[in-house]
Order: sequence, then structure tokens, then C-alpha cells
Amino acid sequence: MRLTTMTDYALRMLMYVAQRPERLCTIAEVATAHAISETHLMKITQVLGQRGWLETMRGKGGGIRLARAPADINVGAVVRDVEPDFYLVECMGVDDHCKLTRGCRLTGVINGALGSFLGHLDGFTLADLLPPAPGQEVAVAPPARRRAPRA
Amino acid sequence: MRLTTMTDYALRMLMYVAQRPERLCTIAEVATAHAISETHLMKITQVLGQRGWLETMRGKGGGIRLARAPADINVGAVVRDVEPDFYLVECMGVDDHCKLTRGCRLTGVINGALGSFLGHLDGFTLADLLPPAPGQEVAVAPPARRRAPRA
Repeated sequence: MRLTTMTDYALRMLMYVAQRPERLCTIAEVATAHAISETHLMKITQVLGQRGWLETMRGKGGGIRLARAPADINVGAVVRDVEPDFYLVECMGVDDHCKLTRGCRLTGVINGALGSFLGHLDGFTLADLLPPAPGQEVAVAPPARRRAPRA
Repeated sequence: MRLTTMTDYALRMLMYVAQRPERLCTIAEVATAHAISETHLMKITQVLGQRGWLETMRGKGGGIRLARAPADINVGAVVRDVEPDFYLVECMGVDDHCKLTRGCRLTGVINGALGSFLGHLDGFTLADLLPPAPGQEVAVAPPARRRAPRA
């Protein structure tokens, strides 16, 4: 069971931008930092912009920033917005050919599980996902800095 | 977000077999009934057999049947057994290249949501997935056998 990379990257993009509230970020730097395709990130930025999670400033010196405070960006809402579908089993999708559909209770049970999954995410905001130490440029520091000698 | 077809088909296979407790079923008939590849079903049958959910009788007149009563086959346990992985985001997998991993709280939150998802499924057995109407071809084991008298 997996979320699409679209949602995975969207969350990481929001986290990256949230950690740099003092400036605009660029898609190129997020792509480099996470070794993610820039084209893929542009698509994600567009969706996050349309849904009101990111703001895009065009032109020279432009970039992206959060459209709201991290504490106002609900994780469950972002996942619902970005994930293309939640067809966990065939009968939940549009191309359902299952012969059991009419009498079967599988859909209801799986839907309930999906509700529990998303309901759990609804309990968190972007602020909850960020590393605890505030003010650091990178929670994303190079390995050498991540393993600092203990005095 | 999707489960693999492996899990989808495994659940449907168990449901199909559960509805025909009076006889052995064949992989060929399940494949035909659900328009699923027979080769794919053979692989699934093997996994379900290894995990103790299905019994396979070889030879002429052979086939498959449930290894336990439907009420003793937990949906969450089957999904855990059959689904290849639960790497909902990259950092949960073995090929994690995310730079945020150390300080990030995403994994914990997603893991919590996964726990809620599977926990919901743990509340149901194969018997709960079957159509309600008893006695019909599509219907299932007779209620008398599903609820053994507490003599």
C-alpha cells in the first residue's frame, strides 16, 4: 500500500518551504535538496497553489512560500487534495468489473479503514511534521553536520 | 492510495471460496468469475496457502477451500500477510533518500495513520465481508456453521 510520489513530494515540499519562512524558495532548490525531478515538482506546486496551500511569486526574484501558517495547513486535507484517488480496491474505482459488488461488504469495510487513515492525518498540521529545533536553516543538513561529535 | 491487486484479489478469492463451503473450488473458476489472470491467482493461492488461510488439495478432483471458518479469518491479518509493503512514503522504505529523515516527523504521523487503517480492518473477519442473504449461490456458509453452538 502506497501513497503516490505526488503526495509524498507535496508534503516534503511544504515541509521544506515551512522551514524557510524568512524567504521565498525556488522549485529548483527543493528539487536539488530532495533529489526530486523539477518537472514533477512544478506540477505539484501548481496543485498546491490551486488548492491554496502555496503561493507562487512570478518573475525575477520570485519563488514559492506557504499561503498559510504551518499550523493552519492540515495534513489530512493536503493528502485528500493531492492524492489522485483512493481506490484501494477495484470496486472503489470507476473501472469496477467485480461480480461481487452488489452483495459484498468489502467496499464498506475498506472505506471505513480509509476513513480511519485520513481521520488520523486530520489530527495533524504541517507544524506537527517539522523538526523540533526551531530556527535552523536545515533539518536537512549534510551528514557531517548531522553527526556532530559529542564534545 | 491503493492496495496492490494482489491483496484485492486475495480478499475476493477468499470471499468466493467462503461462499461455496460445500465443495472445493478451482483457481480456474475464480479466475473466470472475476476475470482475473489465472497465473496471478496461482501466486496468490500459494501465499494464502503458506499463511494458513487456504487449503489446497492436489490431484484429480482437487481444488481449494478455506483452511479456517470465515469468522476465524481476520481481514487485517490477511491484508498484512498479502500486501507486499506499506511504504506509504519514501522514508518508510528501504530506498530512502530523503534528507529530512532525521528530524522529520512525517514517518511517525503516516505510521500512525497506517495503524488506524489496519486497526480498522482488524475489527472484521471474512464472515463480515460476505453478502447477507443466506442459502443463495452467492451467499455463503450456512449461519448454523458460522455460529457454532456453545454446548
